[in-house]
Amino acid sequence: MNKTSVHADSLCPFCRKDNLAKAFLKTPYFSAIYNIAPVVPGHSLVIPNNHTRSLFDLTEQELGEMMVFARRVTSVLKTVFGCDGFDWSIQDGESAGQTIPHLHLHIIPRKPSDIPVSEEWYSKLSDNNNKMLDSQQRERLGEVEYDAITDKLTLASARFMQEEKPNP
Amino acid sequence: MNKTSVHADSLCPFCRKDNLAKAFLKTPYFSAIYNIAPVVPGHSLVIPNNHTRSLFDLTEQELGEMMVFARRVTSVLKTVFGCDGFDWSIQDGESAGQTIPHLHLHIIPRKPSDIPVSEEWYSKLSDNNNKMLDSQQRERLGEVEYDAITDKLTLASARFMQEEKPNP
Repeated sequence: MNKTSVHADSLCPFCRKDNLAKAFLKTPYFSAIYNIAPVVPGHSLVIPNNHTRSLFDLTEQELGEMMVFARRVTSVLKTVFGCDGFDWSIQDGESAGQTIPHLHLHIIPRKPSDIPVSEEWYSKLSDNNNKMLDSQQRERLGEVEYDAITDKLTLASARFMQEEKPNP
Repeated sequence: MNKTSVHADSLCPFCRKDNLAKAFLKTPYFSAIYNIAPVVPGHSLVIPNNHTRSLFDLTEQELGEMMVFARRVTSVLKTVFGCDGFDWSIQDGESAGQTIPHLHLHIIPRKPSDIPVSEEWYSKLSDNNNKMLDSQQRERLGEVEYDAITDKLTLASARFMQEEKPNP
């Protein structure tokens, strides 16, 4: 990470060791963690391991690596949750709704009609955003359920990485 | 692009030469075009020049290049529209709401309070999605206004590319 990133921010929930330890797929630079309050089953986050606020704080190489990593994570999620589509979403900056100042890409695996058209998907995401890992204010998965999903994803990720054919 | 992409699809609005000609920033592989019906001022799209349905149809190198290109486009949009934040959003697959089967990344520059909290940002985006370049069904910018914005963005992009310092 470049000079604008620091190893860890003591106030940042994404920098907490117990949260980073829950990563189901990890490289030296990026981690995938399951959302404690998923919008739909499979809703996960890709974050830089170092405290990095913005997409603009990554080097070009890091930006590319983050997205290649995120695509691997998406493959795992699509397989485990039986999905044929996905959304990627980044809010960068307070005005965009970023409430945790640590860059995170939402990966939301999708199935036909998983979210009723009348529902406010984005609002739902925004509502959840600042309460993701650091709040007791709204419904979260129980620890046992969360850990079971993470274990399943860790296993699926390990298998995926073993089987993956090198991309051109 | 790899074997799953084709040069152009005659039914795809993003492959139409008159639409591609409106790109305000372009590389041999990717284009940035202004949304004919922006959710907020500045709402633009980054697309591969070749007809490519999914993020999974890009090579790893292309995926990285697309995101680095998108970040440059975001810099231009933030400057021209005086924004301090931005959203990136991709819908990949029909179940995720992708209605034009040509990969496109939405870049939405943001300002504080530009979208009332009560509004359904994502629904708004979804509603617009399939009517973006190929429909008369809803309000679009007039051609004169659209071309004026595109000209302004083309000029700003050219200046940005001249001034850009190489990224590490």
